[in-house]
Amino acid sequence: MEKCMPAGFEKSSVTGGFWKRYQDLFRRVTIDAVYDRFEETGRFEALKFNWKEGMPNKPHIFWESDVTKWIEGAAYFLQKQRDPELEARIDELVERMERTQGEDGYLNAYFTVVEPDARFTRRTDHELYCAGHLIEGAIAYARATGKENMLRVAIRYADLIDRVFRAEHSAAFDTPGHEEIELALVKLYHYTGQERYLKLAQYFVDTRGTSGRDGTYDFTDQEHMQSHLPVRSQKTAEGHSVRALYLYSGMADLAMERGDEELFSVCRALFDNIVNRRMYITGGVGSTCRGESFTLDYDLPEYTAYNETCASIALALFCRRMWLMDPDGRYGDVAEQAIYNTVLSGVSLSGDEFFYENPMSTDPRRNAFNDSRPNGLKEHLPILKRVKVFDCSCCPPNLLRAVGSIADYLYSTEGNTIYAYCYMEADTELSLGEKKIRLVQKTGYPFEGKIVITAEAEGDFTLALRIPGWCQGARITVNGEALSLRTQKGFAFIERSWKNGDQVILDLPMEAKWISANPQVIDACGRVAVTRGPLVYCAEGMDNGDRPLKDVRIARNSPVEISMEEIAGFAFPVIRMEASCRKPFEGLYSQDPLEEESFTLKLIPYFAWTNRDVTEMTTWFLEK
Amino acid sequence: MEKCMPAGFEKSSVTGGFWKRYQDLFRRVTIDAVYDRFEETGRFEALKFNWKEGMPNKPHIFWESDVTKWIEGAAYFLQKQRDPELEARIDELVERMERTQGEDGYLNAYFTVVEPDARFTRRTDHELYCAGHLIEGAIAYARATGKENMLRVAIRYADLIDRVFRAEHSAAFDTPGHEEIELALVKLYHYTGQERYLKLAQYFVDTRGTSGRDGTYDFTDQEHMQSHLPVRSQKTAEGHSVRALYLYSGMADLAMERGDEELFSVCRALFDNIVNRRMYITGGVGSTCRGESFTLDYDLPEYTAYNETCASIALALFCRRMWLMDPDGRYGDVAEQAIYNTVLSGVSLSGDEFFYENPMSTDPRRNAFNDSRPNGLKEHLPILKRVKVFDCSCCPPNLLRAVGSIADYLYSTEGNTIYAYCYMEADTELSLGEKKIRLVQKTGYPFEGKIVITAEAEGDFTLALRIPGWCQGARITVNGEALSLRTQKGFAFIERSWKNGDQVILDLPMEAKWISANPQVIDACGRVAVTRGPLVYCAEGMDNGDRPLKDVRIARNSPVEISMEEIAGFAFPVIRMEASCRKPFEGLYSQDPLEEESFTLKLIPYFAWTNRDVTEMTTWFLEK
Repeated sequence: MEKCMPAGFEKSSVTGGFWKRYQDLFRRVTIDAVYDRFEETGRFEALKFNWKEGMPNKPHIFWESDVTKWIEGAAYFLQKQRDPELEARIDELVERMERTQGEDGYLNAYFTVVEPDARFTRRTDHELYCAGHLIEGAIAYARATGKENMLRVAIRYADLIDRVFRAEHSAAFDTPGHEEIELALVKLYHYTGQERYLKLAQYFVDTRGTSGRDGTYDFTDQEHMQSHLPVRSQKTAEGHSVRALYLYSGMADLAMERGDEELFSVCRALFDNIVNRRMYITGGVGSTCRGESFTLDYDLPEYTAYNETCASIALALFCRRMWLMDPDGRYGDVAEQAIYNTVLSGVSLSGDEFFYENPMSTDPRRNAFNDSRPNGLKEHLPILKRVKVFDCSCCPPNLLRAVGSIADYLYSTEGNTIYAYCYMEADTELSLGEKKIRLVQKTGYPFEGKIVITAEAEGDFTLALRIPGWCQGARITVNGEALSLRTQKGFAFIERSWKNGDQVILDLPMEAKWISANPQVIDACGRVAVTRGPLVYCAEGMDNGDRPLKDVRIARNSPVEISMEEIAGFAFPVIRMEASCRKPFEGLYSQDPLEEESFTLKLIPYFAWTNRDVTEMTTWFLEK
Repeated sequence: MEKCMPAGFEKSSVTGGFWKRYQDLFRRVTIDAVYDRFEETGRFEALKFNWKEGMPNKPHIFWESDVTKWIEGAAYFLQKQRDPELEARIDELVERMERTQGEDGYLNAYFTVVEPDARFTRRTDHELYCAGHLIEGAIAYARATGKENMLRVAIRYADLIDRVFRAEHSAAFDTPGHEEIELALVKLYHYTGQERYLKLAQYFVDTRGTSGRDGTYDFTDQEHMQSHLPVRSQKTAEGHSVRALYLYSGMADLAMERGDEELFSVCRALFDNIVNRRMYITGGVGSTCRGESFTLDYDLPEYTAYNETCASIALALFCRRMWLMDPDGRYGDVAEQAIYNTVLSGVSLSGDEFFYENPMSTDPRRNAFNDSRPNGLKEHLPILKRVKVFDCSCCPPNLLRAVGSIADYLYSTEGNTIYAYCYMEADTELSLGEKKIRLVQKTGYPFEGKIVITAEAEGDFTLALRIPGWCQGARITVNGEALSLRTQKGFAFIERSWKNGDQVILDLPMEAKWISANPQVIDACGRVAVTRGPLVYCAEGMDNGDRPLKDVRIARNSPVEISMEEIAGFAFPVIRMEASCRKPFEGLYSQDPLEEESFTLKLIPYFAWTNRDVTEMTTWFLEK
């Protein structure tokens, strides 16, 4: 394994293009939209610890995590542009935490005001998950503003947890039922330099799957919480997908810190299992609502895909950690698959409505039927329209975090090499040893494949540009001169003596592609998906004469027309191509082949689906 | 509407071929197999009404129906061949009923020994359903043996029900939550000539959907029990599919008895809705386990199809009633679809193991994963291997009834016409007015399309032979001379002056057919099913190199090889044809089209699936 340095989003400013649009939208709309919903539902009020039986808005075991994830997300925007009004709101929340934190450092509204006797007794009840998000939020806010009140709260709590779990073993369980604190503790170690946090993270990771005291939900099993085996013996991604990916991210952090080759190998095996067997083409994971979990190899049902927004955010987090130990373009490919498709499907183009689940196909008739049934006869189906808030509201603030820190996905460095993973219009200051390097990207990515990188740098170093897995025929010019590409593990390497103003143009031909799935993927047999660049495309009924979308047939490599079109004020490339569909007939079965009619299929990026009316949607089409 | 006369199975003897094999098997194995399981589980013991709290085998609300359906099924075999030992077993059961029946005629073990205060208070608890089966069993046993003890028990109970429900309205509800008694009461009317039973049936049918006292399960709704609308306003098949089809059968009986054109039209609309929108190609109905029910038009998922064996038996019962009012071959088509596929899939080729659900495709990997999960995380999936008994054991005795009385599906008569619906090797005595007619069929149907009918008859009458909807190019000869076919509503009419020994040969070319489904049927888009005659074919993994069956591609009208092959000692035509399947690769998604490999696809009749090992199974193949 290698040891690259991350180039955090703090080093970059998103200056235009796709992500500027999202960051502006989030700053303008999403931060407040999530805040308002949390305010209305009592999540902030709960921090006052004054709830009593009979009052509305009874605190929930994971409400603190919603609050601190919102703070963390907001902090990422403050990092780039301070905002006294927004900070005042956060400071008020931090004051509440300071007032209500226990003498011993404990901080959890539910286990203080609702079930005070149950503190640290129920493994699955998210206490340590909340603590992890408190730590992450506190660090982000401290970094953004220099204000460390929240950080002190987080540290007091972390110290209590360290004592209770690692020193005293006085909790009723040994490792968290919902992982998250592991990666947060590594962050806290980085921020404070205090090794006890790294040790605690290591303790949680290595104790998992080994403790007889680590019980389960009464309705679930050890796989659900990745506790079926010691983590170093795990080879397949199992159980609740968000838990799994937060764990794997924490494991990768530890492997990196400790130079732990064994743990790194486990992480790589788990990554391989996910991307080679258990991931939707949209970078979604979690094939079932039952436990919000991974299922079995190649089991990727379309209509009931769970694909939680948070799980794809977590998958991207895992990718970013993996590429520090293993500079390989495929981690960038997967991070982009997840971010540009499932993660962004999680938020409306208007920025104020959210999905928890992101299915691959929908059938409004089936949802309407299902909605008309009494609870006892309902199946779990993903909703068809994003909503402003849900009870389990982990995804909206997670989207804030992801979009706010999107520039985290730009670069890493190792020795004298800069690895460029994901492309976006941004201005970045990097260091290679003593060398200061400024890289300015201009690009229409992910809608266009041309990326212009201007370097302000002097001296020898290597710039490694990721050539995405979807791309054939990439070209690079440096100051107008074509470079003969040396590609290795998904990167083209530009090794030169740089001068200020050197201009690199990376041209990634962005063609529509017709993707086949493994023959073991039942729902995709006989079908192709259409992608362009990192974007997966889908069809919606309203754009296609409400034809039955699962009957739509397209030919591989047929001519396509690409044009920029707008939904909700956001323009993106729409793909049109010749297609056909069988004509309807009365009845169910026919000995005669059915007549087909041709039409022009219109496809939009998956992330933009259901931003108009609710009609049918699908991603996989019959291959002619 | 017309009024044909049924020619009950009593008039026919199955003398050879397909159904003789099944009847012999059932007589030899199935009657005892079901008896033994019922004995072991206490269903017969319960009739003694001596269960007390703390004892094993607590009576269940529908156990009486299991017992009386077993008696009815056994009686159909006794009708053809008396058997003192079998009759002694039944007589013993009848004696128990006589001893335990209440003074007032009430007879239900559960509501006597377990919850005596709840009698006639819970609409959904199957009391009247059990009463219906008691009546049907009693009539069958009386017909077969002349012994009327059970019939007297049934009549006493029916009279109580008539008083309680139609005269006093002293039950807590007005119509049965699980229909069945309606059609049984019409049978009782026929047997006894007592019109009050017909009136009671009419009362139950016409009151359904109109009574405010007719509650629901707490987990379900009025649609579940077809009580969402007055039955005459119902246009779509809704709710629990067995309930629905027993109701529709009772409605058809009433329409026929009363010459009720309106009710007949309702029945026809419901039939059309089922066969044109809500029926699997195997004649299975009930698209979901949730409520074992119909869902919505074109919603026919493959892996989670419920397709209860009883529901297809009930569909055949409904068809047989409809064809008496509307002599139309399509009712025969649908009855055969149901019987030769889903109904027979319900029993193993060995005759002693049963399915409740009959899915269209199975994935043993998914079942194995599911089986490994704790209950809270399990989805409902059909089991992959038939079992000797299940708790809800309605299907095994229902199969006994269906196979024992299969000759019911042979003929009906109207005026001077004999309609021949389903073909089987049988010897039948019919009357047309004063004319006595004997028809002897020799045929290898459903494996061969040649049917030789020898008539012992003198005089003018019309023999109408059903030309199945699947058949093109049917030919008929009479005494060797080709007949020019006059076909109407699925029948070819032979109008002649018959002489003893006249021989009709009906030749139904039985080719493999490639069937397409309506483009609205999601799981069948891009796919074809293969049928031959009334049989739907399927592929099993073990016959096909364990290739991923959902990826198998076949071409319409490709050459086929048909050969007789045996499973469990039963020989049937196996179909082989050229097919292809994509080669496996490591990973999930590929920009390049995958290489295909050709192989010979082996198909067996759907009814014979999973009689060897458990491997994958499917019915719909990709169309090349």
